[in-house]
Amino acid sequence: KRQGFPETIYGEGKTAEQITTIITAIQAHGDDILVTRISGEKATEVRSTHPELIYNEIAEILYTRNERKNRFANGFIAVLCAGTSDLRVAEEAAVTAEAFGCEVRRFYDVGVAGIHRLLDNIEEIQQATVSITVAGMEGALPSVVGGLVSHPVIAVPTSVGYGANFNGLSALLTMLNSCASGISVVNIDNGYGAAYSAALIHRLAQPTEEGQS
Amino acid sequence: KRQGFPETIYGEGKTAEQITTIITAIQAHGDDILVTRISGEKATEVRSTHPELIYNEIAEILYTRNERKNRFANGFIAVLCAGTSDLRVAEEAAVTAEAFGCEVRRFYDVGVAGIHRLLDNIEEIQQATVSITVAGMEGALPSVVGGLVSHPVIAVPTSVGYGANFNGLSALLTMLNSCASGISVVNIDNGYGAAYSAALIHRLAQPTEEGQS
Amino acid sequence: KRQGFPETIYGEGKTAEQITTIITAIQAHGDDILVTRISGEKATEVRSTHPELIYNEIAEILYTRNERKNRFANGFIAVLCAGTSDLRVAEEAAVTAEAFGCEVRRFYDVGVAGIHRLLDNIEEIQQATVSITVAGMEGALPSVVGGLVSHPVIAVPTSVGYGANFNGLSALLTMLNSCASGISVVNIDNGYGAAYSAALIHRLAQPTEEGQS
Amino acid sequence: KRQGFPETIYGEGKTAEQITTIITAIQAHGDDILVTRISGEKATEVRSTHPELIYNEIAEILYTRNERKNRFANGFIAVLCAGTSDLRVAEEAAVTAEAFGCEVRRFYDVGVAGIHRLLDNIEEIQQATVSITVAGMEGALPSVVGGLVSHPVIAVPTSVGYGANFNGLSALLTMLNSCASGISVVNIDNGYGAAYSAALIHRLAQPTEEGQS
Amino acid sequence: KRQGFPETIYGEGKTAEQITTIITAIQAHGDDILVTRISGEKATEVRSTHPELIYNEIAEILYTRNERKNRFANGFIAVLCAGTSDLRVAEEAAVTAEAFGCEVRRFYDVGVAGIHRLLDNIEEIQQATVSITVAGMEGALPSVVGGLVSHPVIAVPTSVGYGANFNGLSALLTMLNSCASGISVVNIDNGYGAAYSAALIHRLAQPTEEGQS
Amino acid sequence: KRQGFPETIYGEGKTAEQITTIITAIQAHGDDILVTRISGEKATEVRSTHPELIYNEIAEILYTRNERKNRFANGFIAVLCAGTSDLRVAEEAAVTAEAFGCEVRRFYDVGVAGIHRLLDNIEEIQQATVSITVAGMEGALPSVVGGLVSHPVIAVPTSVGYGANFNGLSALLTMLNSCASGISVVNIDNGYGAAYSAALIHRLAQPTEEGQS
Amino acid sequence: KRQGFPETIYGEGKTAEQITTIITAIQAHGDDILVTRISGEKATEVRSTHPELIYNEIAEILYTRNERKNRFANGFIAVLCAGTSDLRVAEEAAVTAEAFGCEVRRFYDVGVAGIHRLLDNIEEIQQATVSITVAGMEGALPSVVGGLVSHPVIAVPTSVGYGANFNGLSALLTMLNSCASGISVVNIDNGYGAAYSAALIHRLAQPTEEGQS
Amino acid sequence: KRQGFPETIYGEGKTAEQITTIITAIQAHGDDILVTRISGEKATEVRSTHPELIYNEIAEILYTRNERKNRFANGFIAVLCAGTSDLRVAEEAAVTAEAFGCEVRRFYDVGVAGIHRLLDNIEEIQQATVSITVAGMEGALPSVVGGLVSHPVIAVPTSVGYGANFNGLSALLTMLNSCASGISVVNIDNGYGAAYSAALIHRLAQPTEEGQS
Ligand SMILES: Nc1ncnc2c1ncn2[C@@H]1O[C@H](COP(=O)(O)O)[C@@H](O)[C@H]1O
Ligand SMILES: Nc1ncnc2c1ncn2[C@@H]1O[C@H](COP(=O)(O)O)[C@@H](O)[C@H]1O
Ligand SMILES: Nc1ncnc2c1ncn2[C@@H]1O[C@H](COP(=O)(O)O)[C@@H](O)[C@H]1O
Ligand SMILES: Nc1ncnc2c1ncn2[C@@H]1O[C@H](COP(=O)(O)O)[C@@H](O)[C@H]1O
Ligand SMILES: [Mg+2]
Ligand SMILES: [Mg+2]
Ligand SMILES: [Mg+2]
Ligand SMILES: [Mg+2]
Ligand SMILES: [Mg+2]
Ligand SMILES: [Mg+2]
Ligand SMILES: [Mg+2]
Ligand SMILES: [Mg+2]
Repeated sequence: KRQGFPETIYGEGKTAEQITTIITAIQAHGDDILVTRISGEKATEVRSTHPELIYNEIAEILYTRNERKNRFANGFIAVLCAGTSDLRVAEEAAVTAEAFGCEVRRFYDVGVAGIHRLLDNIEEIQQATVSITVAGMEGALPSVVGGLVSHPVIAVPTSVGYGANFNGLSALLTMLNSCASGISVVNIDNGYGAAYSAALIHRLAQPTEEGQS
Repeated sequence: KRQGFPETIYGEGKTAEQITTIITAIQAHGDDILVTRISGEKATEVRSTHPELIYNEIAEILYTRNERKNRFANGFIAVLCAGTSDLRVAEEAAVTAEAFGCEVRRFYDVGVAGIHRLLDNIEEIQQATVSITVAGMEGALPSVVGGLVSHPVIAVPTSVGYGANFNGLSALLTMLNSCASGISVVNIDNGYGAAYSAALIHRLAQPTEEGQS
Repeated sequence: KRQGFPETIYGEGKTAEQITTIITAIQAHGDDILVTRISGEKATEVRSTHPELIYNEIAEILYTRNERKNRFANGFIAVLCAGTSDLRVAEEAAVTAEAFGCEVRRFYDVGVAGIHRLLDNIEEIQQATVSITVAGMEGALPSVVGGLVSHPVIAVPTSVGYGANFNGLSALLTMLNSCASGISVVNIDNGYGAAYSAALIHRLAQPTEEGQS
Repeated sequence: KRQGFPETIYGEGKTAEQITTIITAIQAHGDDILVTRISGEKATEVRSTHPELIYNEIAEILYTRNERKNRFANGFIAVLCAGTSDLRVAEEAAVTAEAFGCEVRRFYDVGVAGIHRLLDNIEEIQQATVSITVAGMEGALPSVVGGLVSHPVIAVPTSVGYGANFNGLSALLTMLNSCASGISVVNIDNGYGAAYSAALIHRLAQPTEEGQS
Repeated sequence: KRQGFPETIYGEGKTAEQITTIITAIQAHGDDILVTRISGEKATEVRSTHPELIYNEIAEILYTRNERKNRFANGFIAVLCAGTSDLRVAEEAAVTAEAFGCEVRRFYDVGVAGIHRLLDNIEEIQQATVSITVAGMEGALPSVVGGLVSHPVIAVPTSVGYGANFNGLSALLTMLNSCASGISVVNIDNGYGAAYSAALIHRLAQPTEEGQS
Repeated sequence: KRQGFPETIYGEGKTAEQITTIITAIQAHGDDILVTRISGEKATEVRSTHPELIYNEIAEILYTRNERKNRFANGFIAVLCAGTSDLRVAEEAAVTAEAFGCEVRRFYDVGVAGIHRLLDNIEEIQQATVSITVAGMEGALPSVVGGLVSHPVIAVPTSVGYGANFNGLSALLTMLNSCASGISVVNIDNGYGAAYSAALIHRLAQPTEEGQS
Repeated sequence: KRQGFPETIYGEGKTAEQITTIITAIQAHGDDILVTRISGEKATEVRSTHPELIYNEIAEILYTRNERKNRFANGFIAVLCAGTSDLRVAEEAAVTAEAFGCEVRRFYDVGVAGIHRLLDNIEEIQQATVSITVAGMEGALPSVVGGLVSHPVIAVPTSVGYGANFNGLSALLTMLNSCASGISVVNIDNGYGAAYSAALIHRLAQPTEEGQS
Repeated sequence: KRQGFPETIYGEGKTAEQITTIITAIQAHGDDILVTRISGEKATEVRSTHPELIYNEIAEILYTRNERKNRFANGFIAVLCAGTSDLRVAEEAAVTAEAFGCEVRRFYDVGVAGIHRLLDNIEEIQQATVSITVAGMEGALPSVVGGLVSHPVIAVPTSVGYGANFNGLSALLTMLNSCASGISVVNIDNGYGAAYSAALIHRLAQPTEEGQS
């Protein structure tokens, strides 16, 4: 069993029928479901046979309502994003982490071009066990956050931007070269992967009997 | 104070004199020292006035003998590397993590082209709180490890290789695209950064009174 | 005559009419046909005048039912792929190799993030004359396979992935930098080319009278 | 005459003899001199025949003592840099701007990983007519500064860093993609060019009779 | 308040409804509006509820008729472009600068392959406070202009071209490497950003009482 | 045992002492030795304690005189190269293949800019079991060869060239995109890897009793 | 007047109306017309008002029937292409050269993977004043041709291919690195530019009174 | 015989001994010699046995004094360069063309940042049969020249520059994307190749009896 987390299906490039078939197979083993990168249209089709699943349309995630929500009750994961265009990826991270049983607090629109919005929230952010920082364009957010917190930071570059942004390459390189310490990076737009790593980290911060599923 | 970790100096491009001056200034505040990327020659020169510092010549690190060694006594960090040419970076990670107060266990020469050496050690590796996987050339090690353990994996691409390796770009892209979950990546050859993130994660796994310095 | 293999038409960018015309011309010389990269729609149109041709919709290949099937009867070619998204390319390779007269055994969904599925099949794979390993994203499969078998391995990177995958560049670089020996690489998504090379190799393993057409 | 600025010689790749010859020719027209990218060794050689020139060894600039210093007396140019390794480029910018007759105020070591050092100085920086922001590695400084000031910002990426920094490409892309407004960018390590643009801008802020030479 | 300039909305990727909502919110604070990258279709929809806004269909900008037009009355900004395919970006710059209160003079179709058209207009261009030079393909215009004027030049590469143009990379690199002085560069196709920087510079050339809003 | 081939040491970046130590360890198991990328100077040092090893100074290979030379006696491997600057890589391939027990025939200086030299030799080349084609600069040789022979072709790009050659990238891309069939590619300058793959293929062409070690 | 050649309009990105307007303006000066990259649909629309223009649908060129056809009567330009997919670009070159008054001879489908088709025609090709060689994928054709002829060769890379072809980059680099002499290169898919250069060269080969218009 | 031109040796990477051996072999056939990319030191060594050869130290070319100098007496080749740092490549082109029997006129230091120096010479340049334009950094010179002359232009990018110049990539892309017509491009720093193409073109402009050697 994958660390007690729901079984995940990568929705992109799969038809609603294919997704439905996989879900049925997984549920036969009694496992929870998390489908990422699934459009509203396909989700509606899948839900016609699986009405028990919830669809989050910003995150584009379809998942099992999780009774074990917040089973990792000690502390929270902070999810930050720079601008409104990074929302889909930030929500992919946030909803995934919640589906994995973590408490999430969202700090959105805290990009570095308006540094005071970040500073206004920094004391709460510092209480998190781990931060997920999502940013496109120049991707500078993790560097500033990394300098202000003393917990691990997972950085997620997004493909938001144009021109010399090269579909997220700019933000990716920024994050890999960060001069702040304690930052590690996942693939462009990979909100899911960031949440997975963050959840594993968050679980370590739990009292043993709960944390180790 | 930076999370109770020693003050770090990036030695590359600094002269022995410059490093000595910075060390003296930091020690005036009573802090421990960690100098990375310092050649044997420069280290010898610095040690003529600072004989209390220890030099690790594989890691190319000069640092304060840390009485607080293993202050994070719960569990260990696994440091894995693929081949002998990745040794410098792997040791930069391992020695840094030890200087930060973590126990480290080394699993070297476990590259994927000889998968059985990795499999022979996997049960012990699975006991770690977090793994640091160092690999150059095709950089496939973290993908295999990520599939076998259920703790966070920090992947470090190295610039070891030639031709289409493009100074580590190959291994970097491999790791960012890993289809295993729970992997996040630091810059090429950044053993120090990997250890820093790993130490922050490892600290979360400590009973509160010790872990939160 | 091209080594006794069917005449191949690259379907991409050709209309159904153009393909039909070429087929008719080739058949006038009595040759077998293999059309790659032809969509189901175009295939249906071509088959309205050439019902004798078979269409494989996963491989997107249209070809002559080959009486000489398995004319290279000694041993088999192993076709491996990492994930279900690599299926089209893997099948392009497998169906091409079969159309060329080779026996093919398929080992699908044996990606390195779940190494045990590969290990469970490795003894049979080791019996092959040559392996074709198809993988997208990080493309680590050939490295692991290359370390476990002692026959030639043809590696096919696929364009499956997103972000820092850069349309298959990531997997391509991984495979070119493999630290396992006996691996050579074809273009991204080039299942056809892999099968062609593999078939030439497989033919060498035949008793002379059959192998040299 | 180039806007009343000294005649500039790009020292890189020229011998001390070649530089000396060019200086002599320029001085014959009564013009001031500014030699950039000239090593200490070459500068010493040139100064043996041109002792009237001043050498700044951090900036690696050799220039005429300018009696017209501060002829653009209204306001100042702020030169900021992220870390000590960016010093050479920052000083190339600062010394050039001074040689061009501008007042310069330096704000060094104000990188975004320690945002408070920048914030501590921001009120004085806001008084500048124009800022030059120099940063290597992730190059995030201009984005933060651009959000805090209401004058034009010239961003200079430096080649400081390693790995995925790709000799300054990372910082260059960051700056071109900045989501702060009022930022324009010069070539990697081009402190001279930044100062030239800044001086032209600064001159516009002068009362007409002085500003328009 | 952002330097007395209108509040700007980046229209790309936002629906007409989303844009309308943001406009209403901004107008509640009494601010002027500038929406960039908004298609004619979306603009028509927004104007059905906000008929007071003007739409410029070449610039693809929707904005408030500005009574303060030309409030920066001293001098003008020159906007130059190389060919007719650069028109959209040039107009994005020109209309933005006008909306910001600057006088703009347009010099279009003055590409370097027909140098005399540029030379015929150069005396008027030299009178500007600042030039915005827009060019795609080889992007050589700023270099020639920079050599002929003694005011700051903002260079805007466009994505116009094909083949080895790589979506504007060619023009971007050309401009960053210009051997003319006084040139700084913004992102590919970023007419808005060029106008913003130019307006900040132009404002410095105003008599203090008007210029400093 | 690695398919009965000698144990290989990659000499680059290892000292003569390190190489000597490894050799001694391998010989203790009775295995043959092949050291690639070892300079003349280092080889001389190693041979002072291991005089039984032979050094080939063009190939920069040090190896055990192999009594089993030509144990794969059926047919030969053709090694082709385009120009004299590709010699080191071609010889690395040729000497390796010989050390592995294969007969090698060399066809050097048969670059496509003088196509007749290739055509003059093509009938003999067609008799090979497999060809290794080595080429730098534009790397066109494998395409022409692939069209003329009906056996597998291993293509080796070299880093020979300058400018837009980008250290072998040009030749690498050429070979991956070859429109001839039956070609597969190894890393830039990887003569060793080409020989390894070729030897595995060549072995398949042997009568079973000899070929399968 | 542009060397007596027709006035050229680049059709891409222009509407039929825009093209019609430009044509009318040019014809008012009595000049001939050449519109490149114009689709059949747009051409039909333009011809509804300009029926005197001829449309070549493979070349996607619309142009004035030129009474001066073959005014450069001495010799011919050879246009070669590698495969059928390069036809559009080859025809763009051929039709342009003809519209410029040159005789053109076509040698199509002479790619290097089937070298004998090229060799069968080489004697006639050698009689040309200049060759235009068009090739996609690996782009090796110009190298082979350059070695066989003693006149100038213009090389045109095409964007035909997939994967590591990177939209023509592969063929472009191949041609720039050609080890044959007398080759110069134009942009990817730029058949027009190749024809323009070739026509200028061809004109030099005319007896003075005709050649110098 | 290669078009009656001297036999050329590429000196880079060859020792003085190797060059001497090749020269002796070529002279045995009575051919003239041209060695490119040979340092002063190596040239001195070669001339100790071949004192009849002339060394041009700017061009770094060693060659046979050619009695046939100016055998192509009709017209001249114009060699232009942008700045003094492009001199080596410009002279490689000029000296090669002269050694091939062409008259050459040099127009140096006519970069586009000081357009009037180019315009002052343009009438003479227009008389050339063909121009070679050499430029580094932004490489804009060929575009301006191409718009002013009506003969073929060969463009040579140089690797002169730093930062975003990427060793000549910037100038190369600029030239490939030129919007002026009649321009074709050779490899970065390839003065030799430009001269070769130019000489072939120049020869076409000769009265037949002389031109066709
Ligand atoms: N090996 C390393 N790789 C990357 N960053 C490092 C390394 N060593 C130290 N650092 C960072 O560099 C900072 C010190 O830089 P400096 O002030 O230039 O000596 C430390 O605080 C670390 O954040
Ligand atoms: N899927 C494929 N990928 C790469 N090359 C192919 C593929 N299918 C066919 N080819 C090659 O394309 C040639 C036919 O191209 P064409 O004449 O354009 O149809 C065949 O002879 C093969 O060499
Ligand atoms: N065309 C443009 N190009 C680049 N940035 C722009 C453009 N238009 C607006 N912006 C920036 O985008 C911000 C608004 O972004 P948003 O809040 O996403 O609408 C503005 O404040 C500007 O800084
Ligand atoms: N400077 C140069 N740049 C590019 N190619 C050159 C140069 N000089 C000589 N060549 C080519 O290199 C060939 C000689 O190469 P090689 O036999 O290695 O000396 C000549 O025939 C030319 O085609
Ligand atoms: Mg931190
Ligand atoms: Mg795992
Ligand atoms: Mg193997
Ligand atoms: Mg600002
Ligand atoms: Mg200027
Ligand atoms: Mg073949
Ligand atoms: Mg030739
Ligand atoms: Mg012209």
